[in-house]
Amino acid sequence: MADGETISANELNAFVAKALSSKGVPEEDAAKVASLMVEADIYGYGTHGVFRLRQYLARLSGGGCNATPSITVAQETVATAVIDGDNGLGHLAMAAARDLAINKARKAGIGWVGVRNGNHAGPLALYVRPQAEAGLLGMAAAVGSANHVPPFGGTDLLLGTNPIAFSAPTDGPDPFVFDMATTVAAMGKIKTLHQQGKQMPEGWMIGRDGQPLTDPARKSEGYLLPIGGPKGFGLSVVVGLMAGVLNGAAFGADVVDFTSDTTSPTNTGQFVMALDPAAFGIGDGFGAEASRVFDEMRASKPLPGHDAVRMPGDGKTMVADDRRRRGLNLNPSLKADLNRLAKDCGVAPPFSDGAA
Amino acid sequence: MADGETISANELNAFVAKALSSKGVPEEDAAKVASLMVEADIYGYGTHGVFRLRQYLARLSGGGCNATPSITVAQETVATAVIDGDNGLGHLAMAAARDLAINKARKAGIGWVGVRNGNHAGPLALYVRPQAEAGLLGMAAAVGSANHVPPFGGTDLLLGTNPIAFSAPTDGPDPFVFDMATTVAAMGKIKTLHQQGKQMPEGWMIGRDGQPLTDPARKSEGYLLPIGGPKGFGLSVVVGLMAGVLNGAAFGADVVDFTSDTTSPTNTGQFVMALDPAAFGIGDGFGAEASRVFDEMRASKPLPGHDAVRMPGDGKTMVADDRRRRGLNLNPSLKADLNRLAKDCGVAPPFSDGAA
Repeated sequence: MADGETISANELNAFVAKALSSKGVPEEDAAKVASLMVEADIYGYGTHGVFRLRQYLARLSGGGCNATPSITVAQETVATAVIDGDNGLGHLAMAAARDLAINKARKAGIGWVGVRNGNHAGPLALYVRPQAEAGLLGMAAAVGSANHVPPFGGTDLLLGTNPIAFSAPTDGPDPFVFDMATTVAAMGKIKTLHQQGKQMPEGWMIGRDGQPLTDPARKSEGYLLPIGGPKGFGLSVVVGLMAGVLNGAAFGADVVDFTSDTTSPTNTGQFVMALDPAAFGIGDGFGAEASRVFDEMRASKPLPGHDAVRMPGDGKTMVADDRRRRGLNLNPSLKADLNRLAKDCGVAPPFSDGAA
Repeated sequence: MADGETISANELNAFVAKALSSKGVPEEDAAKVASLMVEADIYGYGTHGVFRLRQYLARLSGGGCNATPSITVAQETVATAVIDGDNGLGHLAMAAARDLAINKARKAGIGWVGVRNGNHAGPLALYVRPQAEAGLLGMAAAVGSANHVPPFGGTDLLLGTNPIAFSAPTDGPDPFVFDMATTVAAMGKIKTLHQQGKQMPEGWMIGRDGQPLTDPARKSEGYLLPIGGPKGFGLSVVVGLMAGVLNGAAFGADVVDFTSDTTSPTNTGQFVMALDPAAFGIGDGFGAEASRVFDEMRASKPLPGHDAVRMPGDGKTMVADDRRRRGLNLNPSLKADLNRLAKDCGVAPPFSDGAA
């Protein structure tokens, strides 16, 4: 049981794994998923880490997610593959896709691995950062696990936040890691604001009347806005085609809302890619050249009212090391929720009453 | 010589090829580049078609662009390659990259071909639409041919518009073709507004004071804005890494402004990708499934004040067929410019005095 403000990564890991096992997930799979969920929090993706445990447990209980999947390679070439996630927890198929993409990139210069019959797998950063740490470039995308976005100029919810992520090695302490929703805001951030009792800024959502919507409690009455209007819409469709349709996974009206529906398989589609700089003549020199350009950018005089320029991923390694050493400081409502889940699952609560 | 409003694609083609040949470009290469430049206009990418002839001729005259390049495959695997454009007209290396990516995708499921020592190659759509017409998915990106964009929150021009494009087959008359700058506006559009004596809308550029800049004549005094703020910045850096650094091409302060500098090689970097749906189990079924989702989107009731939902690429096939049949209607200032270029090159002017 965690005392005071923080919980160690190991304790949080063990708790999440026990909670998943209580729903029938085999020990090895539960440990793997728990470790990725906690890693999301360690790297600061708080909206996509253990915060999602409630949803995953609900889908395991409801039968929408298969507790004992058999993850298989359905089809492959030297450079591509499709992994069938057998409707298990999404992290399992995506971790397999990432590892396979890296192996293929080492042999063929590139590895592109699609996933079908997947599920919500946490932040995409989990599936691109390891490429950069191994000296490769990474890319990943996912069809969002609920439709909150209409096509540009339309009113029917046919698109998710459809995130896309990229990574690359550098010579500095932090690899380049860039993980974005194709909407101005991700639903996870809006849920966090709701939990914290805060309002959304204008520009994140509009209502059915086309007017700004700022109350996160009314999020189901409006639409998330794509970045750059028709451009974000186009990017979102690209993700739907490459992560969904290409793999035989859901896109459009087929997408199941994985929060409100705990009983239906989602057939979530994703892909993970790895590129080896050795196949492009730059090899080990990639990091130095990327860092040269990044240093030029960091040295740029800030615009009035702005802090120093930061590159995507900057500072994450230090913060993550600190959390691994000192533990994680989860917000009070999440601590309370994890204690409630512990009770539901019949496992020991991770926080003392005072701390939660 | 074209009479009246329009010029046939063949006539325009022949004129552009002759103008390029007058600067020492071999006949076969000149014909290939001219045909791609005219195709850009046929598909409605007016800012990236024959409008660019003046720039290309200036760089050939100035020695910045090599009139007689030898395009070679510098390195390859079964699924990847790097093409060295030998500093020739950019269309030559990019057309070779596109064809090689398609061939590799047929064999390995994916083909990813980078370009170094390239040049401005017109709209990326030229290098992704053929994939979709052949039943494949396409992707391409380019490091922009001049830096007009600072890093997010900074003030030094270290990024170009860094465009990215995607394509996919459908069952309808139009493939999905989506070609976007990672900035709100592309410099080509701003040049066209300038030529037409029009103002820019707010949100396209800001001045060094952080205030909106709307006069296209003052474009060199300000910054293009990325879509979605830090997200567009991140995407732009991804393009710089994957199209530039990975191929040993320019990115950051290395990028040469190809308009103001006609004597230096640009070492432009690009890449072209092709994915074969047959390697992902969906094969010929891809188009039908994409069209199912697209039809759902097109049928969505429009938001107040919006037209019917359109997918990227919709209508282009019909418009292109029409231009191929009836000829192209270029704007008067472009016609006059092409006649002036004809005189400079010592070739017959494409338009009669009355028409230009």
